[in-house]
Amino acid sequence: MKIVSLLFLCIMSQITFGQELFSPSKKVAVRFELTSSGEPIYSVLYEGKEVIKPSKLGILLKDGTRLSKDFNTIDSQIKAVDETWSPVLGEQSNIRNQYNEKSFFLVQKGSNKKLTIVFRAYNEGVAFRYEFPFEKQVDYFVISDELTQFKLTGDHKTFWIPGDYDSQEYPYMETLFSEIDNNKVVMDNGIALKSIKSRFRVQSPLMMKSTKGVYLNIFEAAVVNYPVMHLDVDTSDFTLVSNLTPNAIGDKAYLRTPSVTPWRTIMVSRDARDIVASKLIYNLNEPNRIEDVSWIKPMKYVGIWWEMHVGKSTWDYAGSQNAQNAQNQDLIPSGKHGATTENTKRYIDFAATHGFDGVLVEGWNVGWEDWFGNWKEDVFDFLTPYPDFDLDEVTKYAQSKGVKMIMHHETSGSVGNYERHLDRAMDLMKKHQYPAVKTGYVGRIIPRGEYHDGQAMVNHFNFVAQRMADNKLLLNSHESTRPTGYSRTYPNFFASEAARGNEFNAWSNGNPPMHETILPFTRLLGGAMDYTPGIFEIKMSIYDASKKEQVQTTLAKQLALYVTMYSPLQMAADLPENYERYLDAFQFIKDVPLDWQESRYLEAEPGDYITVVRKDKNSENWFLGAITDEHSRTTDIQLDFLTPGKKYKATIYRDGKKAHWKENPKSYEIQSLTVSHKTKLKLKLANGGGTAISFELLNN
Amino acid sequence: MKIVSLLFLCIMSQITFGQELFSPSKKVAVRFELTSSGEPIYSVLYEGKEVIKPSKLGILLKDGTRLSKDFNTIDSQIKAVDETWSPVLGEQSNIRNQYNEKSFFLVQKGSNKKLTIVFRAYNEGVAFRYEFPFEKQVDYFVISDELTQFKLTGDHKTFWIPGDYDSQEYPYMETLFSEIDNNKVVMDNGIALKSIKSRFRVQSPLMMKSTKGVYLNIFEAAVVNYPVMHLDVDTSDFTLVSNLTPNAIGDKAYLRTPSVTPWRTIMVSRDARDIVASKLIYNLNEPNRIEDVSWIKPMKYVGIWWEMHVGKSTWDYAGSQNAQNAQNQDLIPSGKHGATTENTKRYIDFAATHGFDGVLVEGWNVGWEDWFGNWKEDVFDFLTPYPDFDLDEVTKYAQSKGVKMIMHHETSGSVGNYERHLDRAMDLMKKHQYPAVKTGYVGRIIPRGEYHDGQAMVNHFNFVAQRMADNKLLLNSHESTRPTGYSRTYPNFFASEAARGNEFNAWSNGNPPMHETILPFTRLLGGAMDYTPGIFEIKMSIYDASKKEQVQTTLAKQLALYVTMYSPLQMAADLPENYERYLDAFQFIKDVPLDWQESRYLEAEPGDYITVVRKDKNSENWFLGAITDEHSRTTDIQLDFLTPGKKYKATIYRDGKKAHWKENPKSYEIQSLTVSHKTKLKLKLANGGGTAISFELLNN
Repeated sequence: MKIVSLLFLCIMSQITFGQELFSPSKKVAVRFELTSSGEPIYSVLYEGKEVIKPSKLGILLKDGTRLSKDFNTIDSQIKAVDETWSPVLGEQSNIRNQYNEKSFFLVQKGSNKKLTIVFRAYNEGVAFRYEFPFEKQVDYFVISDELTQFKLTGDHKTFWIPGDYDSQEYPYMETLFSEIDNNKVVMDNGIALKSIKSRFRVQSPLMMKSTKGVYLNIFEAAVVNYPVMHLDVDTSDFTLVSNLTPNAIGDKAYLRTPSVTPWRTIMVSRDARDIVASKLIYNLNEPNRIEDVSWIKPMKYVGIWWEMHVGKSTWDYAGSQNAQNAQNQDLIPSGKHGATTENTKRYIDFAATHGFDGVLVEGWNVGWEDWFGNWKEDVFDFLTPYPDFDLDEVTKYAQSKGVKMIMHHETSGSVGNYERHLDRAMDLMKKHQYPAVKTGYVGRIIPRGEYHDGQAMVNHFNFVAQRMADNKLLLNSHESTRPTGYSRTYPNFFASEAARGNEFNAWSNGNPPMHETILPFTRLLGGAMDYTPGIFEIKMSIYDASKKEQVQTTLAKQLALYVTMYSPLQMAADLPENYERYLDAFQFIKDVPLDWQESRYLEAEPGDYITVVRKDKNSENWFLGAITDEHSRTTDIQLDFLTPGKKYKATIYRDGKKAHWKENPKSYEIQSLTVSHKTKLKLKLANGGGTAISFELLNN
Repeated sequence: MKIVSLLFLCIMSQITFGQELFSPSKKVAVRFELTSSGEPIYSVLYEGKEVIKPSKLGILLKDGTRLSKDFNTIDSQIKAVDETWSPVLGEQSNIRNQYNEKSFFLVQKGSNKKLTIVFRAYNEGVAFRYEFPFEKQVDYFVISDELTQFKLTGDHKTFWIPGDYDSQEYPYMETLFSEIDNNKVVMDNGIALKSIKSRFRVQSPLMMKSTKGVYLNIFEAAVVNYPVMHLDVDTSDFTLVSNLTPNAIGDKAYLRTPSVTPWRTIMVSRDARDIVASKLIYNLNEPNRIEDVSWIKPMKYVGIWWEMHVGKSTWDYAGSQNAQNAQNQDLIPSGKHGATTENTKRYIDFAATHGFDGVLVEGWNVGWEDWFGNWKEDVFDFLTPYPDFDLDEVTKYAQSKGVKMIMHHETSGSVGNYERHLDRAMDLMKKHQYPAVKTGYVGRIIPRGEYHDGQAMVNHFNFVAQRMADNKLLLNSHESTRPTGYSRTYPNFFASEAARGNEFNAWSNGNPPMHETILPFTRLLGGAMDYTPGIFEIKMSIYDASKKEQVQTTLAKQLALYVTMYSPLQMAADLPENYERYLDAFQFIKDVPLDWQESRYLEAEPGDYITVVRKDKNSENWFLGAITDEHSRTTDIQLDFLTPGKKYKATIYRDGKKAHWKENPKSYEIQSLTVSHKTKLKLKLANGGGTAISFELLNN
């Protein structure tokens, strides 16, 4: 039976038509073909060898139309682009966008329906998307499925997390492709809401490495008015197929002509640094739409947040997190509420003393007694402070200290409720001069039946970014869909969480040491992450002797994350009183910039290590971050990125000799020395450790 | 088999426990019992005879709990209430709320779950509801089904429309109960969006008449945070069962303890006037929640609206109603756009000349080129006028003439989009001093999968009413869920459509002459209707000789509707130029008040006729409206409602001698005479005709 159908397939798939498109470097190529039955098929080549085998393309419409066969190519069009643009905030001042493009204009026999497939060949990979040209007879249409395949050439090493429609907050699994299986994932992982509908479904970006040392990354760019793509895994023949997040009634996307899908991207290189440094995802997004960007600035902040995670204080005023207490009796303060005026002033003082831009306060508004887990619609009004949080006084105090307040809008997943209040909530921010907001979406989505990754939610997150831009407000969203470069278009959407952040270390099985060596190859490709590094009191036993949780890190690694984990929004997440005890190490967090002229990845291996240097956008100073996984690591770094002939004061923050993420995490050393571009430095990273270095240009 | 199961049922249902609650008049009684298996059962008696046979009660929860059996009564409580309240606007200055109440506190064996069933016995019927008392172990819960039965005693005459989750805009069917069948409904009826999921499902209010002349009406009151109840029909044993409108994923209602369901009402009387005059539905709602009601005033209005229905002008600027024209090219005005500044001024002038309060303008805002039928999300922004509608100039002109503008917000069913814009839309209204808004919900609901009648939409309509109240704005919603008395609680929600309005006469098979004799027994029980009467140019052939549509009325009946169809918001729906030709008849529309001290239904028979007199709230003048169905009618009316010893100038607007709704609809006569409370008037109503009379107190 199987042989017969395979034979049949071979006959049907006899290739009648071939096309090839090369990257500017000629190293990467994509080949597009129509089979004899008019099926669109593509493959990707790297250095002349297939890295994606002939894979099917197509779209299934709700009206039954299968836009996956019976096509003729009526025309094609080639374009070569080489342009450079400047992000408002970023890892580098200028980004080169260089690619060759070929569009295939297809028409379906019989139905006469049109479909355009556009390929772009970049030096670091291939992107393609479907375009639905303007057609009188197909105006509005509904996508039931996208049939895009990615047929791999072998059993690659794969860094994956389950294809969960509601959460990306998983630690990464590192297995062979053939071993992917959601049943292997430890589900006691602190994630409260999980929506895994298939055992063999993973998320993108999916980072892989072939046995021959070729790195592959499958992702998407410019997810706008379309659901997030997950990937169905066929472990038997190394094939991935797109799985679009459905809505409440099982539809995938509501579109009309003309429109386009997001770009499907396949990055490929023999050098892992090409992947981690790639700006492909941004390049595939639409240019900045905000005219006046003078108000879009990086923010380094502290906040009333970690103290709730470690159990020192609570988000809610009544301290019980009990719905019924709030409903049936007056709020009785427990005395453990974090967001008090007094405590906020303490953080403002700390921020002012150490030159931080902002202070985040979570739990300032009523509703936290019953905010989670009940699919409740009217959770927060985003307007009413708790009785012990005086908005006017906090505003006045922050202004007197030159510190900016960061608003917090937890929606609890009740999106309709948030949208209903959004204008008023922004008015409150403007009245009290909060320049930025952190949003949260912990919980099942309302409208009920929607997922975090569905088209409606993608549109919601983008809508909020647009409305915030209209009001000159900065947006940092947590529990949102993972970004796919939209911050190019709306640079005020300057960070998001959308992955497993540092917080999980406070109260769950946490993030293994390799976690932060994978994120730059996955989550960070689409946009900056508010990872909230900087935890100095690493073991939670300091708060409660019975606690076994800890950040799986050394202290020096926490510093290095400010460089390895690019974001224009960075929190110093630990408590002020903890920083007070390690002010020498804290100096690096104070010094490190958040916006860069240039970035160079010196070393990178997903799951193992990353070393990156970045040059401050506003000075001649450089900063280095190096991290490793659970293994210790020694490496020699040539400082040839420094300007020849100049001298720099290097301040090195490194693991102590006996440091170890588990046994001895807080051991660190600080050393200063004068260096030049000729200097070679030996970095010694402890197990789960890191090194951070600032290079300050000396006036010779 | 059938006999066996019936026998079994008889044994199981052996009644072990009985309770009876009488109305203050003793005419109506409700009996509550638990069967031997702990099933709650009720029956309703009128004049000692069963009108609702023993019928089951119960709730099914999503977690599988069947709150319909195994109950014990742990306690009961009796209450007698006799109070009077004053509606802000209404048919009468004071409403008496007199009833006896008995609550049964049930506990389920095994689960230990609590359910309270509360009965109220009024002189005109019975109401009951389920209450979910505060329970630690059942905080949040989801209702999967409500199991309420209404077992009728015979094959009553029934006025019904299909149980459609998205529309109540059907003409009524008048059949025996046993003949109910949605397959009999003419579906080429002008309703674009139909969601009829069962052949044997009807809407409430369901008006019935037994062969013994007892009138019965099944409805609900205070539908708040709960879906609309439809009724599943078992024609074989004359049974109705509640069918709650589901949400996108099939759930019915999300509640938490303590909470209550809407009231289920069974009105019963031998006199049909008791039903049509009943204030039961309002009495079962919560009192007014708006403190300052000084801004809540009736409104008589004209507007740019009927001219679109008759094809004289268009809502959209480009005149094409073509999505793609608007998307792909600049808007090219067709010259037929109705909502121009100039045309608006013409209506303002007309309103000012004739003493109208307001002018409605539909089609003022961009989006109408592609507003309907495509499940489009971003249809309107509620903010941007068409280029030919100058909002500032219109505002200034209206103010100079002392006329108020009525805003129009068509949502196209895209509710998320409306809620996102609501605050800004209200800000625009306030800036331009529009005191009232007409909202519209034509089309499939977004969030997709929701129905107009679901819990989410009930909450939406109530939310909009609340937000409008916060902003001192009046609300008139079209295509909303039919009201169930919420205007008592939010009197700014002063009218809605939610039934088949006059507009259907312009372009569909229309509303048969009996239609308006049924609405007061059904739709109007829950709240005022913006029916838009006053069409003088009855036959559409005046606009286009080929048109066969017409309002199925005489001109005099159109006047009578202003009295028979109570609403504090009344439109004179026809075109100014049409009224100019019949200014003598138009005088009645100018004179008729919209707010009343007292109303008396002199005659009423559903489907046949209604005669009502009402006394102006602000004077001693009375007004009479009498309408009939397709049959002509002669009746003698004793004017004993007039104050004895006083003389009144009666101005009688009646059908011409040869008037007939189809053959000769525009024939009318106006007569003035002096009358007193001793006068007897003979009213002669043409087929499909009516009579309107104003009684002006003379200074003797």
